[in-house]
Amino acid sequence: MTELIHEATGVEGFAARVARAVAATGPLCAGIDPSEGLLGEWGLPASADGVRTFGLRCIEAFAGEVPVVKPQVAFFERWGAQGMAALEDVLASGRDAGLLVIADAKRGDIGSTMAAYASAWLDPSSPLAADAVTVAPYLGLGALQPALDLASATGRGVIVVVRSSNPEGRSLQEARTQGTEDVVGPAVEDMLLGEIASCNHGGLATPGSVGAVIGATRAPSAFDLADLGGVILAPGLGAQGGTAEGAAALFAGCRPGSVLPSASRSILSAGPDVADLRAAARAECQALGDALV
Amino acid sequence: MTELIHEATGVEGFAARVARAVAATGPLCAGIDPSEGLLGEWGLPASADGVRTFGLRCIEAFAGEVPVVKPQVAFFERWGAQGMAALEDVLASGRDAGLLVIADAKRGDIGSTMAAYASAWLDPSSPLAADAVTVAPYLGLGALQPALDLASATGRGVIVVVRSSNPEGRSLQEARTQGTEDVVGPAVEDMLLGEIASCNHGGLATPGSVGAVIGATRAPSAFDLADLGGVILAPGLGAQGGTAEGAAALFAGCRPGSVLPSASRSILSAGPDVADLRAAARAECQALGDALV
Repeated sequence: MTELIHEATGVEGFAARVARAVAATGPLCAGIDPSEGLLGEWGLPASADGVRTFGLRCIEAFAGEVPVVKPQVAFFERWGAQGMAALEDVLASGRDAGLLVIADAKRGDIGSTMAAYASAWLDPSSPLAADAVTVAPYLGLGALQPALDLASATGRGVIVVVRSSNPEGRSLQEARTQGTEDVVGPAVEDMLLGEIASCNHGGLATPGSVGAVIGATRAPSAFDLADLGGVILAPGLGAQGGTAEGAAALFAGCRPGSVLPSASRSILSAGPDVADLRAAARAECQALGDALV
Repeated sequence: MTELIHEATGVEGFAARVARAVAATGPLCAGIDPSEGLLGEWGLPASADGVRTFGLRCIEAFAGEVPVVKPQVAFFERWGAQGMAALEDVLASGRDAGLLVIADAKRGDIGSTMAAYASAWLDPSSPLAADAVTVAPYLGLGALQPALDLASATGRGVIVVVRSSNPEGRSLQEARTQGTEDVVGPAVEDMLLGEIASCNHGGLATPGSVGAVIGATRAPSAFDLADLGGVILAPGLGAQGGTAEGAAALFAGCRPGSVLPSASRSILSAGPDVADLRAAARAECQALGDALV
């Protein structure tokens, strides 16, 4: 992993931290999604208190069993400031438990506004500090620079939604950018993957700071994912129809420990008992490890 | 405005509400952007208390002078749950003052996650309830359906970032979608504008529920903006180089009261005195009214 550590500063990049965690437990990003449906199934109130209890129970169950957890910010924001206070507690609990935490926020803006989002989720002194945050690139990858810079400086990660697992995103993400003269440019998603790879291969001080969300159900892309140099977060397994074998084919050639399949409902529906949740997470993590490695 | 009201339910759509407000005061969306820079200029602390004071002072200054205000969520989220509590206070104050409030959040996700964001910002019972919320369409307009439906049902608005004012967004937003046979499809931004127009012209129960962010410095698009049927939020005037005359040319033919130029720094730098802020907002609103109407 030494090639993922910044030579001069010694900052360990996010990709190296993930790879180390995956080596210990297997590859899985366990979602923490306290939707109203799951709150009801768990017998918890639809409220800020409900999402706090849900999130803390997930942390207790997943600690030591999976490398990475991913609280879905929307389900906390749904309850306003009190819900965000619950999220702060869940993030702190995840850190204390030694889990890597990705805040699934899909933020994106420009200039000083983007810098504020970066501070909110990646500044170590922020009450919402996570190890990584997901971002949306509609305003261009360049607009996200304040987050990329802060991630690089702090050994944290920015994970860019590139190839989403939902069908409604296809026409936009597959649109072709302007090429030169008569040659059509790459698809939007391939352009972004190339820009992310450039960040990871010298564009930012710390390699491996920028990752991508790539639906596990997607076909192979024109861009060779083995060259990305960052973490690949892969939703779409389980409930959304993807299989571990399909993911293994899509991500063949990627660095070991760089691909994090994410699963939420398939694990969370085993709750609310902590032991049951833990068993479900362990089984999923082992199955994915067998398929991907 | 009767054509903007749902015939069966009597729900007044967001575009009609904006048009009514603009007719009273002139066209302007006044940004509430408590960046660390502006907090310093105003002599306020960089904290949740600072952004609360900043926001409440803006509401006091802008009430009765402008039709619409737009708190930038990132500058509140920057301070975690306490910052979001400050935003709740600013949103409530704006409602009480009779201002229309657009939460500039640029959220975007899929399925139950998108439904949670929609509830957070558009459900009248939410502590973060606003009159409209900005969203980002990287996952496709169809993925935003839960927000579109809730806006239509409640007379609120969803404003989709389509043609951003920053240069980094051009290559993505101008990429060409797949056409039929040998004919290239529309640009991503024009595809989205067409989809938004469809929502406003029958696709949703309440017309005028879906708007678009279109940078005031952009060239005219292939899609005729006069057909959008929703509110156009137009950043980029003032500090970003756009002029009222340029905006008038870009939006020629659009329904009176449908175009909301937004301005933040050019007004906010007149603070912290409430009377000075009010005078700056009034001057900007009048200048834009003269140029656009």
